[in-house]
Amino acid sequence: MAERNVVIYPGSFDPPTNGHLDLIERASKLFDEIVVAVLRHDSKEPLFSVEERLEMMREAVGGLDNVTTDSFDGLLVDYARERSARLILRGIRAVSDYEYELQMALMNRKLDPTLETVFMLPAGRYSFLSSRLVREVSRFGGDISDLVPDFVALRLQAKDRKNQ
Amino acid sequence: MAERNVVIYPGSFDPPTNGHLDLIERASKLFDEIVVAVLRHDSKEPLFSVEERLEMMREAVGGLDNVTTDSFDGLLVDYARERSARLILRGIRAVSDYEYELQMALMNRKLDPTLETVFMLPAGRYSFLSSRLVREVSRFGGDISDLVPDFVALRLQAKDRKNQ
Amino acid sequence: MAERNVVIYPGSFDPPTNGHLDLIERASKLFDEIVVAVLRHDSKEPLFSVEERLEMMREAVGGLDNVTTDSFDGLLVDYARERSARLILRGIRAVSDYEYELQMALMNRKLDPTLETVFMLPAGRYSFLSSRLVREVSRFGGDISDLVPDFVALRLQAKDRKNQ
Amino acid sequence: MAERNVVIYPGSFDPPTNGHLDLIERASKLFDEIVVAVLRHDSKEPLFSVEERLEMMREAVGGLDNVTTDSFDGLLVDYARERSARLILRGIRAVSDYEYELQMALMNRKLDPTLETVFMLPAGRYSFLSSRLVREVSRFGGDISDLVPDFVALRLQAKDRKNQ
Amino acid sequence: MAERNVVIYPGSFDPPTNGHLDLIERASKLFDEIVVAVLRHDSKEPLFSVEERLEMMREAVGGLDNVTTDSFDGLLVDYARERSARLILRGIRAVSDYEYELQMALMNRKLDPTLETVFMLPAGRYSFLSSRLVREVSRFGGDISDLVPDFVALRLQAKDRKNQ
Amino acid sequence: MAERNVVIYPGSFDPPTNGHLDLIERASKLFDEIVVAVLRHDSKEPLFSVEERLEMMREAVGGLDNVTTDSFDGLLVDYARERSARLILRGIRAVSDYEYELQMALMNRKLDPTLETVFMLPAGRYSFLSSRLVREVSRFGGDISDLVPDFVALRLQAKDRKNQ
Repeated sequence: MAERNVVIYPGSFDPPTNGHLDLIERASKLFDEIVVAVLRHDSKEPLFSVEERLEMMREAVGGLDNVTTDSFDGLLVDYARERSARLILRGIRAVSDYEYELQMALMNRKLDPTLETVFMLPAGRYSFLSSRLVREVSRFGGDISDLVPDFVALRLQAKDRKNQ
Repeated sequence: MAERNVVIYPGSFDPPTNGHLDLIERASKLFDEIVVAVLRHDSKEPLFSVEERLEMMREAVGGLDNVTTDSFDGLLVDYARERSARLILRGIRAVSDYEYELQMALMNRKLDPTLETVFMLPAGRYSFLSSRLVREVSRFGGDISDLVPDFVALRLQAKDRKNQ
Repeated sequence: MAERNVVIYPGSFDPPTNGHLDLIERASKLFDEIVVAVLRHDSKEPLFSVEERLEMMREAVGGLDNVTTDSFDGLLVDYARERSARLILRGIRAVSDYEYELQMALMNRKLDPTLETVFMLPAGRYSFLSSRLVREVSRFGGDISDLVPDFVALRLQAKDRKNQ
Repeated sequence: MAERNVVIYPGSFDPPTNGHLDLIERASKLFDEIVVAVLRHDSKEPLFSVEERLEMMREAVGGLDNVTTDSFDGLLVDYARERSARLILRGIRAVSDYEYELQMALMNRKLDPTLETVFMLPAGRYSFLSSRLVREVSRFGGDISDLVPDFVALRLQAKDRKNQ
Repeated sequence: MAERNVVIYPGSFDPPTNGHLDLIERASKLFDEIVVAVLRHDSKEPLFSVEERLEMMREAVGGLDNVTTDSFDGLLVDYARERSARLILRGIRAVSDYEYELQMALMNRKLDPTLETVFMLPAGRYSFLSSRLVREVSRFGGDISDLVPDFVALRLQAKDRKNQ
Repeated sequence: MAERNVVIYPGSFDPPTNGHLDLIERASKLFDEIVVAVLRHDSKEPLFSVEERLEMMREAVGGLDNVTTDSFDGLLVDYARERSARLILRGIRAVSDYEYELQMALMNRKLDPTLETVFMLPAGRYSFLSSRLVREVSRFGGDISDLVPDFVALRLQAKDRKNQ
């Protein structure tokens, strides 16, 4: 095995949380290159546009040399091939997460048998954290300063003011 | 990230199954070096001795250049440090697996915060496979030719004859 | 510990079921005061308005001296503080319930470390019961007389007639 | 026990997958008569109309003598009584499936104590397969030829072209 | 499908509980013939001998015409073939049950692809019931009269007296 | 509801961990009186005798006014009645925990319908912690200083020296 290990870390990141960033930092120490890939099309109506999510993610991972950001559309396996990546990275927190992740990983392996999915755990203190919960807490004025980077908290508050 | 990625794949391997070997093969394509590490001490009474398990594993992974075998005793984190490995590899099949694996991974991270655990999935067709089930099926004369390598099947049958 | 134990039992209660009422009755024997708190804002479109849900709940818990009803908006931790409650009560039925409940309880503890969540089990015969299932069964004319109080059944039937 | 065993296999089948067909074939060897019952009313917006789903299912099970297709509305227990069936068949793949299925089975038993639900497993190679995943993969041009019958794949591609 | 449906219901039955009997009764209405098969060899030290368990089971199912009892050793798939049965029946109560049952069912299908496993649910009021719990409660003098038939309760009490 | 709320917190506590103590401290703020009850009889061979476990627990909860320690034998429901307690407290960490706990809680309610079980969560940072894991880590010389009180760590080390 001599090639560089390029890893895709796909997600909605609406917005990026400290849990996502913890995982990216851990992965950046283990793999040659991490591509954080923001999902363009999503069935759910996002709070932040793809461009806003890319901006926040770019700012958040700025200090990590081997991490880049991108957005993608269509099948993850096609995007991975395009980027010459053979690895998908996913974080798992809870059992219900894991069930869905397992299904996706097996489907992706079916679509492209050369593509592997590896799972890592974010820090235990973020085990309860999700973008959805952060959005809800922020909407009702809860303190999210430990859950997302400061510049994400500011953007969330700006969104909440606008949506009222 | 420039160092070599040494990965420890620890287990009882009593005996090695095609599920273990499938995982090792997948991992060998993604990481620089895989150390398959047979657990010496175990609370359960094993069917095969550590030496027998090492012999079988050595034969099974013989064709893979970047895979070596070893045995270890004591704490996994100490062994990983000794081998300059920063990654533990574990396969997950079922949800109940995953719960225990999560607990172990968090404990290991507590004992050594620089050590990460990554999880991978064996091929779907091995999702039901465990060393324990293989031992039981073999004991009652069931056909295990698709579940373990041939030389493992022969050794199991020899054990079963001896134990009767 | 000398203060009164005020417990918040939050939920959508759309409509209240015998499972909710069983849990409230059990809790009323263990804690000094139970506040059944109907969630005002909810992402899902409810069948009954907050006022209707409050009316039904008030009628249902009328016989219990230490149970009051209320509605709330915003963060549960803010509402609990306002009501001087240090305890959140949640019922758990199934494993998938429990996963989400765990996440919420940890988030609430993060937002207010003095607030605890306790979990109790409704009677085993209500383990399959949810407001959603009751609404569906009622909509197709199924017999829900053992699943909700009579006056809730009548209101459901009235809704169903109106919505046809 | 002398009566014929009529089994209802209810579902959305939007579209039918090889996982559904595998289960139907297995069941057709065990029970006297299988009625594949397409759910008319559904809270989710289906991709295919009930008529389209019935057509695809009819074509898919054409070779099996004791399998018929139908559609139904309202409560499953009422439909089962109408068809003189005392058995509901459901496939289970993952743990999260099973939780919901258990809840439904207990509710149906509550509504009609003479009606039983039996669970069977599709082939392991379809454990990750769902109609929703098939729709998504097809929408982005992924290869679904192993996941659904050919005529279903063609219809999916036609839908995708029309919806673009 | 014209042949008789012979179903094997295998287990330790140490002792038989009302949960087992509830399942047998439900199955006896759906299948042509039920063979309740007591597992001879077991890794765990049983409280009752195979003969005692067979006696209790025989007495318990005496009133059901199409239910017989037997004991078996070795692989379940071999025993099923010998009895010309194509169906294994298993009860599932909890999620953790289900995981193990799934693994066994896939292994049995691997060993004999013509053999199917069907799962049924015991009555909700027995969802917490297991032979192990019954043995423990009985050992400490708890009331088990609703959990096992009377003659099983008497035998348990006799065992407990003898073991003191 | 005017009576005092006496809560039994039963367990093996072999040895007490920081996870147990965190839960006891949380509970001591919510309930009038906590009785930490060490299980005398246990199927597993304990590392510490009941007397040692009681001594450690007594030292650990010494600073909490409304917490006492005791040991018990036989059925938990009988012991609870003897202590005039109507509440059992159990900590839950993982999903597999929860399944077993649910079964026990329903059995205890069956044996004594006036007895309720409440569940609480230990601090997230102890979610991976169990007495068994602590024993294993200590046996191999791992650092357990954050996982148990200091005097428990010393006793564990003394045991490990003696058992070598």
